[in-house]
Amino acid sequence: MSNLVGKTGIVVRNIERGGAALIDELTRYGVATVHEAQGRRGLLASEIRPVQHDIAMSGSAVTVLVAPGDNWMFHVAVEQCKPGDVLVVTPSSPCTDGFFGDLLATSLQARGVRGLIIDAGVRDTRTLREMGFHVWSRAVHAQGTIKETLGSVNIPVVCAGQLVNPGDVVLADDDGVVIVRREELQRVVDSSRKRADLEERKRLRLAAGELGLDIYKMREKLAEKGLKYFDTVEQLED
Amino acid sequence: MSNLVGKTGIVVRNIERGGAALIDELTRYGVATVHEAQGRRGLLASEIRPVQHDIAMSGSAVTVLVAPGDNWMFHVAVEQCKPGDVLVVTPSSPCTDGFFGDLLATSLQARGVRGLIIDAGVRDTRTLREMGFHVWSRAVHAQGTIKETLGSVNIPVVCAGQLVNPGDVVLADDDGVVIVRREELQRVVDSSRKRADLEERKRLRLAAGELGLDIYKMREKLAEKGLKYFDTVEQLED
Amino acid sequence: MSNLVGKTGIVVRNIERGGAALIDELTRYGVATVHEAQGRRGLLASEIRPVQHDIAMSGSAVTVLVAPGDNWMFHVAVEQCKPGDVLVVTPSSPCTDGFFGDLLATSLQARGVRGLIIDAGVRDTRTLREMGFHVWSRAVHAQGTIKETLGSVNIPVVCAGQLVNPGDVVLADDDGVVIVRREELQRVVDSSRKRADLEERKRLRLAAGELGLDIYKMREKLAEKGLKYFDTVEQLED
Amino acid sequence: MSNLVGKTGIVVRNIERGGAALIDELTRYGVATVHEAQGRRGLLASEIRPVQHDIAMSGSAVTVLVAPGDNWMFHVAVEQCKPGDVLVVTPSSPCTDGFFGDLLATSLQARGVRGLIIDAGVRDTRTLREMGFHVWSRAVHAQGTIKETLGSVNIPVVCAGQLVNPGDVVLADDDGVVIVRREELQRVVDSSRKRADLEERKRLRLAAGELGLDIYKMREKLAEKGLKYFDTVEQLED
Amino acid sequence: MSNLVGKTGIVVRNIERGGAALIDELTRYGVATVHEAQGRRGLLASEIRPVQHDIAMSGSAVTVLVAPGDNWMFHVAVEQCKPGDVLVVTPSSPCTDGFFGDLLATSLQARGVRGLIIDAGVRDTRTLREMGFHVWSRAVHAQGTIKETLGSVNIPVVCAGQLVNPGDVVLADDDGVVIVRREELQRVVDSSRKRADLEERKRLRLAAGELGLDIYKMREKLAEKGLKYFDTVEQLED
Amino acid sequence: MSNLVGKTGIVVRNIERGGAALIDELTRYGVATVHEAQGRRGLLASEIRPVQHDIAMSGSAVTVLVAPGDNWMFHVAVEQCKPGDVLVVTPSSPCTDGFFGDLLATSLQARGVRGLIIDAGVRDTRTLREMGFHVWSRAVHAQGTIKETLGSVNIPVVCAGQLVNPGDVVLADDDGVVIVRREELQRVVDSSRKRADLEERKRLRLAAGELGLDIYKMREKLAEKGLKYFDTVEQLED
Repeated sequence: MSNLVGKTGIVVRNIERGGAALIDELTRYGVATVHEAQGRRGLLASEIRPVQHDIAMSGSAVTVLVAPGDNWMFHVAVEQCKPGDVLVVTPSSPCTDGFFGDLLATSLQARGVRGLIIDAGVRDTRTLREMGFHVWSRAVHAQGTIKETLGSVNIPVVCAGQLVNPGDVVLADDDGVVIVRREELQRVVDSSRKRADLEERKRLRLAAGELGLDIYKMREKLAEKGLKYFDTVEQLED
Repeated sequence: MSNLVGKTGIVVRNIERGGAALIDELTRYGVATVHEAQGRRGLLASEIRPVQHDIAMSGSAVTVLVAPGDNWMFHVAVEQCKPGDVLVVTPSSPCTDGFFGDLLATSLQARGVRGLIIDAGVRDTRTLREMGFHVWSRAVHAQGTIKETLGSVNIPVVCAGQLVNPGDVVLADDDGVVIVRREELQRVVDSSRKRADLEERKRLRLAAGELGLDIYKMREKLAEKGLKYFDTVEQLED
Repeated sequence: MSNLVGKTGIVVRNIERGGAALIDELTRYGVATVHEAQGRRGLLASEIRPVQHDIAMSGSAVTVLVAPGDNWMFHVAVEQCKPGDVLVVTPSSPCTDGFFGDLLATSLQARGVRGLIIDAGVRDTRTLREMGFHVWSRAVHAQGTIKETLGSVNIPVVCAGQLVNPGDVVLADDDGVVIVRREELQRVVDSSRKRADLEERKRLRLAAGELGLDIYKMREKLAEKGLKYFDTVEQLED
Repeated sequence: MSNLVGKTGIVVRNIERGGAALIDELTRYGVATVHEAQGRRGLLASEIRPVQHDIAMSGSAVTVLVAPGDNWMFHVAVEQCKPGDVLVVTPSSPCTDGFFGDLLATSLQARGVRGLIIDAGVRDTRTLREMGFHVWSRAVHAQGTIKETLGSVNIPVVCAGQLVNPGDVVLADDDGVVIVRREELQRVVDSSRKRADLEERKRLRLAAGELGLDIYKMREKLAEKGLKYFDTVEQLED
Repeated sequence: MSNLVGKTGIVVRNIERGGAALIDELTRYGVATVHEAQGRRGLLASEIRPVQHDIAMSGSAVTVLVAPGDNWMFHVAVEQCKPGDVLVVTPSSPCTDGFFGDLLATSLQARGVRGLIIDAGVRDTRTLREMGFHVWSRAVHAQGTIKETLGSVNIPVVCAGQLVNPGDVVLADDDGVVIVRREELQRVVDSSRKRADLEERKRLRLAAGELGLDIYKMREKLAEKGLKYFDTVEQLED
Repeated sequence: MSNLVGKTGIVVRNIERGGAALIDELTRYGVATVHEAQGRRGLLASEIRPVQHDIAMSGSAVTVLVAPGDNWMFHVAVEQCKPGDVLVVTPSSPCTDGFFGDLLATSLQARGVRGLIIDAGVRDTRTLREMGFHVWSRAVHAQGTIKETLGSVNIPVVCAGQLVNPGDVVLADDDGVVIVRREELQRVVDSSRKRADLEERKRLRLAAGELGLDIYKMREKLAEKGLKYFDTVEQLED
């Protein structure tokens, strides 16, 4: 499917989506844990920042390729969305214009779309927060866009450095955005759950004052690599 | 007046200001709408970000040209301010030092000044938020400035990519900052009001589930430009 | 001690710390004032931003040098921390990976550490805010790190442009981060106190409407440098 | 194949490559023309800049995924290269360390590799220029890397915003880098050839003083969109 | 004329230009000297970099406002150009696409245009250098543009932070780009000539080993400000 | 000496310098090799770029702390320079103004100074290249500076992320800039010489077609870490 990347003038109507319960469960673990749990893959560039705070969101990706400075394809994409979806939008050339605002958010919210991930700018951010429509973007910019040039909907896109297929699962929180392949969802949820359990147990030990040095048995390996302890700086300078 | 841009050593005492009611009305519409309503002109670069959240502010520009790393002209500018004014400050060379803090804010607030737009850095941001003195800046930086070199007050300045004349109207919110020419204020308010009404009507239709594709009658134009729908990706790959 | 900068494989166990009361007092004055009070020295680059808002924190620096993309030395550092300490971490090459998250924060909090200053990325930011563990970082990034390469603990490091010695005092708030040399702590607190008192008196006069031009007697010096007042722009263009 | 993106620990020995004559022909047209000819797809981010000037290079992509700060996989990749190949390297997290220098270039050159495209840093740039080994990189940085963590060779990678499959064709010149899908090579060469011919004819007409306005018959469409001519600014201000 | 800034759909046919001899003379002095000579005004942001090296160019500005990602107005502008002109182009929103390449350069060169200053991207840079068409731009980017949206020609524009009026004089070299107001040209040339003479005399004295400290009689002022000399660091630490 | 960092108003007349032969020898090895040879310490941030190409330079650091936008201390520094010195300059707050141009270069060249490393901007770059005065800087910017505020000469400074002591040895080439502690010079030269010899031997083997995999005996370790080879992608997907 990768030879579709970047093609314009295409809308794919039916995409496969992952199971809703699994998708929702991801928000319990958060981006950092899920990213680890799937082998450190799928993380969007850290320049994609949330417009709101202390929110975690997950959903199925409806992908949108837009021309720089042109948000026409958003309207085409709305029709392809279902409840629980998340729009993942990328311009074909770097652009920080404000492609998206409260009207489009209203339209998407009416269809049950949960939020937007966009490698570009958005506007009406205060209203977006008030509406509870969640957005992660590269920029906030009031500069509007036109409607002249075709892009595509539901083909694979590269968004902020990651390939996103339509129907892939998106997880976003204050730490950023991670993509989980639809076909790996069950495996990643299982692995995230285990990891979260493990982390919880470690947290209790660490909170009780145990040291990571001991829990993870690091002392020998550190010594082997040559770590030296000195009582004072003076001792070191001798 | 453009041959005054960049000149130093000048203070103009009396500037014309727009009508207070019109200026205040702008905050109802917000930066994105007003920017559209005046033909997409006057938007400052998106690097100018608010120090506080969920605040809209408007006022008459008192313009200040400062030397990089030198905030002397702020004190000169305070005397020229009236209630309802907004300081618009630009350094003659890029500089992110903290030109402005709570003492200057106190002085400006005592004269009824509403806020500051600065293409440079500010400091004491927590106190500024507590005081309710609103600021949009390029940076937050504790690095202070000196008082050695003259700039100017109330000459035209280029601030974050836009020409700002003294007495022009400033509107700022979470999306950024837009400048409205004083002589165009009535027209821009009228046009913003109409636009906001129109948007409100569209919002109701979109919230009710109507599609932008239908409201804006986009289907034909999209087909004409060559947009193709496919039921599945497989169909596309045939 | 400067020939230790950048050396790896070293842990210094005992460092001298400043007096707790003096360290705590610094938070009353804030970064901008303390930076001025010590002669505009010790300010970290403004790219180091707080993960939380409206918090001021001070403490004794436990310094950590890490390899890029490798957070092994955090575990070594935890053991060297005492209540009231602040971790100051710098990678040996620029890196915005997420070196630090909630587990390490739990471990540090269990030892009474107040927070973290890091010239790199962190993750689990929402949990960090909920825990009340305060962080100033260059980036928020979910990308994790490995544990393969030695760094050092409690040697001098250059963090965001400033030299930080172990035991130096760290003050951080919404404006950024400033380092106070341990041996200058008493002097800087005294000088900050005086400065804050002075500023408070000025604030009262400014709030009452007095002008900085008069309080600081600037009018003559401005005239001497050539500042000219014009009643209107027209007058200027003649 | 897209679910391989980001996987580590994999080396694929045999990849299909495009025809040598077609690949070589691409350098005649250059990145800008080829990018247009294939529908404006496949262009790497403009931050990837050449280390040398006035050089065009094409070849078959041997793709390499590396860990940040770790160049171990370069050595693995060398063995998989054939004459006419170009290494395309991407780190799994943003990193500007100098992954590559003259020794690796010597090794690659010995196997007939033409050059390197890397979304990271390189070093020994003067020697690279003297050797005639061509490089496009995000940064020049003397900071070296380690050899601890596995990546992969010859799986699809996202490099500077574009998906690159092993065996895809790389074209690079002073304008940047474009990727041509192997299976589309013939079509893109044909289309580039036509485009270049067309451009050559246009160039002759433009050089002779004809206007684009006339050659492309733009005058009516401009008038239709509302373009107005004024003899002088004064006329406009009336 | 400043209320024209940002207006679209306008072409002004006749603009006033400065005297050719004066314009040419500017290249003798260079951007740094001319910028000083006119009171440190008119310098474009330092992100605008030359595509070629060791070239100085001057000319009369034909100004062009373009939509982001849309180079239609270049064709309109060509017709308005005369020998000795320089195109000064600014997008209405930040954009680094490659608006300009060798075909447009051919067309402009056929009309005697000397070069281009653009606050955006260009492409075909190698050919531009071979043609001797000089360019200063924010970026080099092969990404092309479309022809859908009107801009304007020969209205005042803000380019890289400076207001440029049609007919203003542009001077560009390896140090950057400076704008000289047409009406101030004679004065600025005179002042640059004097400054250059003065610098030449200083250069001779400095080359002969005299110190700036003595030539500019700085020693007293430095002592007055409190500069202290120490024979060794040890002396200072006493 | 670290408590001197950032202090202003100080000039130290006599500093210790390293041996000329050793300093000169460093240029044979280059920045990347010397940086490795001293344990990957002392490398300036990669944003410091050369103004000229294909030049390597070494010398003894005369350190200069300047106020942002103020180059007064350069004149003070000139008097403290000896043949073979290199000026290392850092502003007390980030600033990209053009602090340095051809007149100061003339003065320094007259005293035998070899070049300049500056974490800020320079101008007159074409003349600097013609003069053969070598410069590494953060920016090229025609914006000049003033002479109002004291800095210091020959105290330790933090320049582009590294601590530099007066008399430390500076090595700069196309890859960047590295600092060698004066007291470690002999050791670093010895170690660089060995490293360069070793690299030369490796280069010969690599040029003859031997693989790094074999020379460095990496195959086992790679297998141990889990690297798997597949003949084709299809095999992998099974």
